Amino acid sequence: MNAKVGIIMGSKSDLPVMQDAADILTEFGIDFEITVVSAHRTPERMFTYAKEAHSRGLKIIIAGAGGAAHLPGMVASITTLPVIGVPVKSSNSIDGWDSILSILQMPNGIPVATVALNAAKNAGLLAAQILATADESLTVKMQEYKDDLRKKVEDSAAELESK
Amino acid sequence: MNAKVGIIMGSKSDLPVMQDAADILTEFGIDFEITVVSAHRTPERMFTYAKEAHSRGLKIIIAGAGGAAHLPGMVASITTLPVIGVPVKSSNSIDGWDSILSILQMPNGIPVATVALNAAKNAGLLAAQILATADESLTVKMQEYKDDLRKKVEDSAAELESK
Amino acid sequence: MNAKVGIIMGSKSDLPVMQDAADILTEFGIDFEITVVSAHRTPERMFTYAKEAHSRGLKIIIAGAGGAAHLPGMVASITTLPVIGVPVKSSNSIDGWDSILSILQMPNGIPVATVALNAAKNAGLLAAQILATADESLTVKMQEYKDDLRKKVEDSAAELESK
Amino acid sequence: MNAKVGIIMGSKSDLPVMQDAADILTEFGIDFEITVVSAHRTPERMFTYAKEAHSRGLKIIIAGAGGAAHLPGMVASITTLPVIGVPVKSSNSIDGWDSILSILQMPNGIPVATVALNAAKNAGLLAAQILATADESLTVKMQEYKDDLRKKVEDSAAELESK
Amino acid sequence: MNAKVGIIMGSKSDLPVMQDAADILTEFGIDFEITVVSAHRTPERMFTYAKEAHSRGLKIIIAGAGGAAHLPGMVASITTLPVIGVPVKSSNSIDGWDSILSILQMPNGIPVATVALNAAKNAGLLAAQILATADESLTVKMQEYKDDLRKKVEDSAAELESK
Amino acid sequence: MNAKVGIIMGSKSDLPVMQDAADILTEFGIDFEITVVSAHRTPERMFTYAKEAHSRGLKIIIAGAGGAAHLPGMVASITTLPVIGVPVKSSNSIDGWDSILSILQMPNGIPVATVALNAAKNAGLLAAQILATADESLTVKMQEYKDDLRKKVEDSAAELESK
Amino acid sequence: MNAKVGIIMGSKSDLPVMQDAADILTEFGIDFEITVVSAHRTPERMFTYAKEAHSRGLKIIIAGAGGAAHLPGMVASITTLPVIGVPVKSSNSIDGWDSILSILQMPNGIPVATVALNAAKNAGLLAAQILATADESLTVKMQEYKDDLRKKVEDSAAELESK
Amino acid sequence: MNAKVGIIMGSKSDLPVMQDAADILTEFGIDFEITVVSAHRTPERMFTYAKEAHSRGLKIIIAGAGGAAHLPGMVASITTLPVIGVPVKSSNSIDGWDSILSILQMPNGIPVATVALNAAKNAGLLAAQILATADESLTVKMQEYKDDLRKKVEDSAAELESK
Repeated sequence: MNAKVGIIMGSKSDLPVMQDAADILTEFGIDFEITVVSAHRTPERMFTYAKEAHSRGLKIIIAGAGGAAHLPGMVASITTLPVIGVPVKSSNSIDGWDSILSILQMPNGIPVATVALNAAKNAGLLAAQILATADESLTVKMQEYKDDLRKKVEDSAAELESK
Repeated sequence: MNAKVGIIMGSKSDLPVMQDAADILTEFGIDFEITVVSAHRTPERMFTYAKEAHSRGLKIIIAGAGGAAHLPGMVASITTLPVIGVPVKSSNSIDGWDSILSILQMPNGIPVATVALNAAKNAGLLAAQILATADESLTVKMQEYKDDLRKKVEDSAAELESK
Repeated sequence: MNAKVGIIMGSKSDLPVMQDAADILTEFGIDFEITVVSAHRTPERMFTYAKEAHSRGLKIIIAGAGGAAHLPGMVASITTLPVIGVPVKSSNSIDGWDSILSILQMPNGIPVATVALNAAKNAGLLAAQILATADESLTVKMQEYKDDLRKKVEDSAAELESK
Repeated sequence: MNAKVGIIMGSKSDLPVMQDAADILTEFGIDFEITVVSAHRTPERMFTYAKEAHSRGLKIIIAGAGGAAHLPGMVASITTLPVIGVPVKSSNSIDGWDSILSILQMPNGIPVATVALNAAKNAGLLAAQILATADESLTVKMQEYKDDLRKKVEDSAAELESK
Repeated sequence: MNAKVGIIMGSKSDLPVMQDAADILTEFGIDFEITVVSAHRTPERMFTYAKEAHSRGLKIIIAGAGGAAHLPGMVASITTLPVIGVPVKSSNSIDGWDSILSILQMPNGIPVATVALNAAKNAGLLAAQILATADESLTVKMQEYKDDLRKKVEDSAAELESK
Repeated sequence: MNAKVGIIMGSKSDLPVMQDAADILTEFGIDFEITVVSAHRTPERMFTYAKEAHSRGLKIIIAGAGGAAHLPGMVASITTLPVIGVPVKSSNSIDGWDSILSILQMPNGIPVATVALNAAKNAGLLAAQILATADESLTVKMQEYKDDLRKKVEDSAAELESK
Repeated sequence: MNAKVGIIMGSKSDLPVMQDAADILTEFGIDFEITVVSAHRTPERMFTYAKEAHSRGLKIIIAGAGGAAHLPGMVASITTLPVIGVPVKSSNSIDGWDSILSILQMPNGIPVATVALNAAKNAGLLAAQILATADESLTVKMQEYKDDLRKKVEDSAAELESK
Repeated sequence: MNAKVGIIMGSKSDLPVMQDAADILTEFGIDFEITVVSAHRTPERMFTYAKEAHSRGLKIIIAGAGGAAHLPGMVASITTLPVIGVPVKSSNSIDGWDSILSILQMPNGIPVATVALNAAKNAGLLAAQILATADESLTVKMQEYKDDLRKKVEDSAAELESK
C-alpha cells in the first residue's frame, strides 16, 4: 500500500469517532492507514510510528485522543509531518475540555492542527486540503464537496420555505 | 510577488501576535503576504480575499482574530485552501475562551486548523509543514528547526545541572 | 408577502428550537419568513440574504446557530438591521458555551442582540418589542402577554398554597 | 427633554464603561438620559423607573451592571420596552462570567438583548438600529457608520501592506 | 398560621427541588409557608412579598430559582430578613453555573446566604440553625440530626467493613 | 468578653479581606472575636474551636478561606451553629473558582451559608441579619443601613444627572 | 490483618467508583482495608482514622469524595502518610469540577496526590508504585502490568489493521 | 551522587516554580537531581530519562510543565516509578486550566500524582512522604514539619488576637 495519511487513535474505543476521518479520505480517493497507537500504554510504538512516518511515505498524521490527550502533541514532537489533532469526548473526559486543551495548547515550536471536539470528519477534510496544495485534482473535488454542502442547505431551505 | 501564504488578521491590534507567523515564514524562506481583513467590518473584502486566494496562487491562509472570532471560519467557508486559525487573546476577549471556541468549534464540512491561544509562531510552522508535504527541502529545514529546539533545551539542561 | 422579521438558522436541525420564535410572532400577528441560511455552507446565500434584507422590507433578523456560531454576527456585519442572535445548544456544541460566546462576544461596531441559550421564544418577543417602539398596538399586546405570564404564576401560587 | 433612550447603570463605577453608549447616541443624534439605578440598593427607584419608562416616552432602556447583575432583567420584567443589557466586568466580578450569565440567561417570556462584556458602544448602536426600524434617516447614518468602520480597516490594511 | 420561614420559588417546576426545604422544616417542627413568586413574571408580587415579610412575622426567606436567578437577590434587596438562596439546576440552566453565579455573586451591602446547587435540604437546615440561635430546643434537635447523620455513616462503614 | 460572632480565617494573609466582616460587626455594635484557624495546618485547633463555639456563647461563625477551602465546611460539620463561608481569592486560587466550589458545594446535611467571592462585608451583614431575627433593634439598624445604601445611590444619580 | 493501604470514601454511594482501587490492590497482592469515613458527617471518626493510621501500620491512604470534597485534604492535614485523593463525580457534583478543585488545590504544606476524576484504579496503581519504592517485587509486577496494557493495545491495533 | 528524586521541568522558565521542590528536598535531607527535559522539544531525551530512571536508582520523579503539559504523563507512561506532576501556570497557559487538565486527567493504567497549580513545594513534600513509607526518620521529620506549620499559625493567631 501507499498510504499518504496515517490515522491513529489512543484507544479502540475512539474508533466510532475516528472512522469519520477514514470515510472522508475514502470519499476523496486518498490512501490511508488506520491503527491504534497509545501514547501512554504503548509509548515505544508511538515513538516508532512517529519516527518512521515520513520515511514510510506518510504525508500527514491524524491523531485522535481523549482526556489528558497526549498522542497528537507527542507525535508532533517527533515527526516533521503536519499532525492533525482530534479531541475525542471519551467516557473519562470532562465534557471534552481536557481533550481540547491538552491537544490545542501546544507550546511554541510544536504545532498541532486541532479540529473541533469529535470532528474527525473535519480532520479528514483538512488532510485533503493539505494534499490539495500540491494536487489540483483534489482541489476540484474539494470544490465539489463544498458545492454539495451548499446544495443540501439550499434543499433544506426550499423545503422549509415551502411549508 | 509570488506569495504562498496569506496572513490576515481581524484588526491591526492583532499584529504584535501575528507578526510571529510572518517571522517564521521568513526564517523558512517562504513567500507570504500580510494584511488586515475584518470579517465584521469589511465582510466584502473578506469575501473577495477568500474567493480569490486560490487563483492568486496562495496555498494556505493563516487567519488570526479575537473575541467572537469569525474570520478564520468564514474564510474557510469560502475557499478550498487549508485555513490555519490563530485565536488571539485580544483586549475584549474573556481570557481567550471566546477566541478559541469560535475558531475551533467549526461544524462538520468546514475545518479550521486551530493552534494554541496567541500561537502565531505555530501557525507559521504548520504552514511550513503543509508546504513541506510537497517540498522536501522544507522538511530538511523543519528537521533543522526541531534540532535547534532540542539543542536549546539541552543547553538549558546542562546549565541547570552544572549549577 | 410582507414579512417584517426574517428568521434564519444555520441548519435544519435548529428548527425545533427556532420554531418558538415563529410561534411567538404568529401569536403577536407579525408577518415573518423562515428559512435555512448557513454562514459556513452557503456563505454567498448568507451574503445575499443579509445584503437584501433591508430593501426587501425586513425590519429585524433573528438568526440561530450552534457551535462556532458565525451566522448572527456575519449577518450583522452586512446589514444595518438589528440582528437577534439565538445560541443553539446543537449536538456538536460544548454544553452551549461555544454557541454563546461566538454570538455574544461581537467586537465594537457590530452588535448582536443575544438571548439565552435556545431561547428562540425570547428572540420572538424581543422582535415584537422592537416593532412595538413604533406600533403602540404591539405594546398593548406585549402588556397582555406579560399579564398572562403573571396570571399563570399566580395560578401556580394559588394551587401550591392550597395544598 | 425628549429622551428616547434611557441609559442606567447599577453603580457610578460603571460609568467609564457605560459612557460609550452615551457617546454613540450623541454621535447618532439620539436624545437620551443617563442615571444610576441600582436593582439591589434602590429597588423601588428601579421599579418606578421601569414602570414609568414607557409613559415618559422612552423607547429603549440600556442597562449595565456587573457581578450578580439583576438590573437589566428586572427592568425587563417590569417594562414592555426592549431592554439592552451590558454585562460589566466590575471589580467584584469573576472575570465577567457572573455578569454575562445573570444578564443573558433570562427565562422564557422576559428577553434581555445582551451585548458583549463591557460593550456599551454596541448597546448604543443596537439602540440606534432599533430606532432605525421606524426612522430611515437613522438607517442612513448607520450605513455611514459601517462605511467608516470599513474605511478604517482598509486604511490599516493599506498601511500594513505598504510596510 | 404563624409561619417563621417563607419558602418561595421562581416557578412551579422548581417544586421537586424546593420540597426538600419544606420537609426539613416539618421535621424540625418549624412553621413555614410555601408559594411561587417569580421575580421576572410577577415583579410586583415579589416586591409585596419581600416588603411585607418582616411585618407578617417571617424570620427567614428561602428562595430558589434557576438560570438568570434574580429572585433571591431581589428579595434580599427589599427585606431586612436573612435570605437563603437555592440555585436550581433548571432545564434552561447551563449545568447550573448561571443559577449559582447570579445568586451567589451579590454586591456588597446585600447578602444572600447561598447553598449548593439544588441543595434545598441544606437551605432548610440553615434556616433551622438560624432560628436555633435564639431557641435552644432547636439546637438540641440539630445535634440529634447530626448524630443521626453520623450513625448512618457508621452503619454504612460497618456494613462495608463486614463484607 | 461576650463575643456573639467568631470570625476565623485560614491564613493571616486573608485578613485584608476578612477585616470587612469585623468592620461591619463593629458598625452594628455586635461583639465578635477574630483569629486565625487553619483546617489544614491546625486541624486540632479547628476541631476544638468548632466544638466549643456554642458553649462559649458564639451564635454564628464566619469562616474565610481560599483555594481548596475546607475551613467553613469542616467547622460546619462539627458545630450546630450557622456557619457563613467567605470564599477568598487568595494568591494560590484559580481566579476564585476553587475557593467558591469547595465552600459552596457542601453535601446534604451540612450547610454553609456562602457569600460572594471576597465578600466578607456581606458575611458581616448576614450575621447581623441572623442575630436580628431575635433582636428587633438590629432590624432597625439594618433598615438604616439599607436606607443609607439607597441614599448614596440617589446622590450618585443626582450627580450624574446634573452633569 | 496487616493492611498497608486504607481506602476510605465519603459516602457508601462512592463505592462503585472506589471498588476499582480495591481491585487493583488485590491484583497486586497488597493488603488493604476499606471503609466509609465522612469528613462532614463523621468528623471525629475521620480525625481518629487519620490520627491512628500510621501507628496502625498503614503506609498510604486512598480517599475518595465528591462535591465539596474535604475528606482527602483533611486526612492529609492530620496524618504524615501520603494521601491519594480520588475526585468522585457524585450526583451532587457540578460535572466533577467541584470534586477536582476541592481535592487538588491544597495549600502549600499539605499535599494530596490527586488522580483523575473517578480514577480510583489509578489511585490503586499509584499506591502500588509508592510501595514499590521499597519493594522490588512490586516493581516487577508493575512492569508486568504495563506490559499487559501494551499488549492489549497491540492486539487492538492488529485487529483494526487486519480489517 | 545518589539521587533518590529526579526533578524535571519542561522549560528553564519553569525553574522559579520548581525550585520549591528542590528546597523542600534539601530541607528534608533527601538527595535529588534537577534538570530540564522537554517532552515536546527533546522527546528522545525524555524517553531515555524515564527509561533509565529506575535503574539509575531514582525512586520518584517530580515533573513540572505548563500549557499542553505532557511531560508528567509521558514519563509516567515509560517508567514504573511514581510520578508527581506539577501543573505550572506558564505564560502560554489559560489561567492554568490547560496545565491542570493535561496532567491530571490521565487514563486508567497510568497514574500521575497531581498537586495544585504551581505547588512544587507540595510535590517535594509528597516525595518525602513517599520515601517515609520505608524510612521512619523521614516520618519524624514530616511530623516536625507539620508541627512547625501549626506553630506558625498559632503565632499568627496569637498576634491577631492580641491586637
